[in-house]
Amino acid sequence: MSAPKTAITPTRAENYPEWYQQVVKAADLAENSDVRGCMVIKPWGYAIWENIQRRLDAMFKATGHENAYFPLFIPMSFLEKEAQHVEGFAKECAVVTHHRLEPDGKGGLQPAPSAKLEEPLIVRPTSETIIGATFARWVQSYRDLPILINQWANVVRWELRTRMFLRTTEFLWQEGHTVHASAAEAQAETRQMLDVYADFAEGAMAMPVIKGEKTAGERFPGAVATYSIEALMQDRKALQAGTSHFLGQNFAKAQEIKFQSEAGELEYAWTTSWGVSTRLIGGLIMTHSDDDGLVLPPQLAPAHAVILPLYRTPEERALVLPYCESVKSELADQSYDSEPIRVRIDDRDLRGGDKKWQWVKRGVPLVLEIGPRDIAEGKVMVKRRDLAGKAEPVLRNELVATAASRLAEIQKSLFDRAATLRTSATVELNSLSEFNDYFAESAPGGLAYCHFADGPVMEEKLKELKCTVRCVPLDAPRETGKCIFTGEPSPQRGVFARAY
Amino acid sequence: MSAPKTAITPTRAENYPEWYQQVVKAADLAENSDVRGCMVIKPWGYAIWENIQRRLDAMFKATGHENAYFPLFIPMSFLEKEAQHVEGFAKECAVVTHHRLEPDGKGGLQPAPSAKLEEPLIVRPTSETIIGATFARWVQSYRDLPILINQWANVVRWELRTRMFLRTTEFLWQEGHTVHASAAEAQAETRQMLDVYADFAEGAMAMPVIKGEKTAGERFPGAVATYSIEALMQDRKALQAGTSHFLGQNFAKAQEIKFQSEAGELEYAWTTSWGVSTRLIGGLIMTHSDDDGLVLPPQLAPAHAVILPLYRTPEERALVLPYCESVKSELADQSYDSEPIRVRIDDRDLRGGDKKWQWVKRGVPLVLEIGPRDIAEGKVMVKRRDLAGKAEPVLRNELVATAASRLAEIQKSLFDRAATLRTSATVELNSLSEFNDYFAESAPGGLAYCHFADGPVMEEKLKELKCTVRCVPLDAPRETGKCIFTGEPSPQRGVFARAY
Repeated sequence: MSAPKTAITPTRAENYPEWYQQVVKAADLAENSDVRGCMVIKPWGYAIWENIQRRLDAMFKATGHENAYFPLFIPMSFLEKEAQHVEGFAKECAVVTHHRLEPDGKGGLQPAPSAKLEEPLIVRPTSETIIGATFARWVQSYRDLPILINQWANVVRWELRTRMFLRTTEFLWQEGHTVHASAAEAQAETRQMLDVYADFAEGAMAMPVIKGEKTAGERFPGAVATYSIEALMQDRKALQAGTSHFLGQNFAKAQEIKFQSEAGELEYAWTTSWGVSTRLIGGLIMTHSDDDGLVLPPQLAPAHAVILPLYRTPEERALVLPYCESVKSELADQSYDSEPIRVRIDDRDLRGGDKKWQWVKRGVPLVLEIGPRDIAEGKVMVKRRDLAGKAEPVLRNELVATAASRLAEIQKSLFDRAATLRTSATVELNSLSEFNDYFAESAPGGLAYCHFADGPVMEEKLKELKCTVRCVPLDAPRETGKCIFTGEPSPQRGVFARAY
Repeated sequence: MSAPKTAITPTRAENYPEWYQQVVKAADLAENSDVRGCMVIKPWGYAIWENIQRRLDAMFKATGHENAYFPLFIPMSFLEKEAQHVEGFAKECAVVTHHRLEPDGKGGLQPAPSAKLEEPLIVRPTSETIIGATFARWVQSYRDLPILINQWANVVRWELRTRMFLRTTEFLWQEGHTVHASAAEAQAETRQMLDVYADFAEGAMAMPVIKGEKTAGERFPGAVATYSIEALMQDRKALQAGTSHFLGQNFAKAQEIKFQSEAGELEYAWTTSWGVSTRLIGGLIMTHSDDDGLVLPPQLAPAHAVILPLYRTPEERALVLPYCESVKSELADQSYDSEPIRVRIDDRDLRGGDKKWQWVKRGVPLVLEIGPRDIAEGKVMVKRRDLAGKAEPVLRNELVATAASRLAEIQKSLFDRAATLRTSATVELNSLSEFNDYFAESAPGGLAYCHFADGPVMEEKLKELKCTVRCVPLDAPRETGKCIFTGEPSPQRGVFARAY
């Protein structure tokens, strides 16, 4: 017997990285562009991003933040002001040096030498410096604080090896930037936004995450503390899905953000920044999808259900299409997740099988087929994307009445499935030999909770095993132990994993 | 007697351009940034843009368009492919030449010579070329058409003289790009989107516009026909507020967008593009605002109403605040323009007068004041931003019941006021001497409908008078006449005005 045929070749087991690229392609999410490292986000992929944006934006506003927009360009001298920051970002940025093209005399164009900028401009890799310079103008007194701003924007980091959604030269993101009168307030903001990210990941994305603090070597350049949410993909590699930084007074000092305190003293302010990006879509894909393509959690699916009308003759079409329209409208009158259920009818002139597989590969939670026989029986053929097996007949009224709860069930079951995988791929390791075995090249790996002391000995070992320290989990118990790398005392376990 | 004091200095009559800058500042809409020609859009200004986006986006989707995202960068060679297009945009673009910075040996940074790009990248001034190259991959057969795409993005055009919202080096916009199997279909799309823009301008923005076709000299570089909506500002200068381009097969040929027709022939496709930008906010400001600052049409106002609690003692505060909260919640239960009424309470510790004037200057349609005496009388002091005169007492229940209709009235009255101004500033001119008088430097100017023949004679005269031809209105009667500049026969009048 041959293996059952899958819509995606290769399968996850055969070649996970290539499976990922094929899912992106089969689901029509994105494609590589003519510009090295930049992708085109296609309508289905962009619609997922719009859903991510809409929900996160509401969460940001509910926590008191307002949106604003700052320049795409950063003067080179701004990067020079924060030593660690420039170290982290100067290596990988797009530099604008001219403001005009002119004919090159050979029928082509060239940057016009007469239009060379006095000071080069950097395409923002992140906006702490340019936003900080603006905040310095906005903040005079403690009465002006806190400032709670978010920006939806594109950023550019020159990447050598890119992979769609996971690592691209240009990507879309949001970056929150806030200013506070005290360290405690800024720290609370940093943690609050980490919680927002975790709630979003586990809620809307159905993707379980670990909240934790990054080790010194993994901090955002210029930050005092960096927190992240870490998710586990199906190949047992971790994905950093969002970060929240407590910047202390570092950027305030570099950018001169000062305020008059209640006591009348001139003090440097305390700032934070936090961001998630289109990388979340990469995480979404790798958390839920299977060998038949994308699987979307209903809360982020551009369509909750697609109706495929089945007919062979014009007479059948005249019967089936209006019926489908009325099912669509009844479903759209139902509410799931505080919004009307999103339904499409796909009446394109394509073979039924091809059409159905397109929607399977695109990850629509419910695919509904309706033909003359179904109508005669008052039924709809219903296929849940997250379950194996064939479509089952459901009475039309029952489908309408249960559509929202079916979607809720899918959302929950996706989370549970991912959580189960994570549990099965999580261990506590207490010795270097266990660690060596767990992260051996031939071993599946996963998440390992280990006592550790940050430093060159550990770093050397991690490099050797192509492993990384993800974070020190916030909810892990404080438990005295010994670093598995050096034997030094350790107050708490960190999470280790191979990572994207 | 001295003139009544206004919140904005200078007034419109005293110095219109400076009044504009002061309104932008007083309403907290935007400010200049540290990057030449780029602005920071502040939360109140950005919230207006979000309202514009949300409404336009719904209109685009209702007409069958989907959003997608394309690269920020355009390879220089792409610009070279469409001769007129490069002519139009090469002069004013940001050119990326390096992808890394390195220490310059003097304590600063410099673009790393070893990281010079083989081919410079242009920061998109508009995306016809990069999107066209993508479409060439997407289109094979007539079955793939039409392609109806919109992108929300930032673009960069290196401008020498900038003015916030009206002309900035970086600005935010949407650009629609569509591909069709026939010229007729592409032309219909071009006109449909012009109608969408006009409906939006006259509806949401309460800004009357003329729909028309641009003359050859004013066309988008590379277009076969360019249509625009043109609005009249209070200084009687015109503002081009949106454009829609029929690109014929020009870009399809430059980018090789070909398809197999139903008849089996390989044909070049027909494309369109259309866009509006943050410039709309400039139009909004100059259409409605007065010498006390911004005046916002309710459909785009971030807040429809602001409640200012008035109290002197903690006891009064304990009485007034809960009352304000309950008024807010009753108002928010009302629906205006298919959405809940947007209400804020401003309980900041500021002098009452300062606070009230802040909201006047920010253009909130209804400012509501509530103090202990109002509560005793069951009343609220209501001030309509668009009307002169003082706040008037309104019974609380009556206010709640009539809030939506009051907002609708404001929306209508703003449109009517702008339309009246436009009518009073519109003439038909039938001779060059009339034209000379109407656009004399000392004359107020306005919109002049004149017969004309496009060409150097007319251009010379327009240059001399600092006047422009705005468009040939689509709804103007075809009426034979003689060009006022040359005496040549003319089939139709064009609209002339000084313009932004």
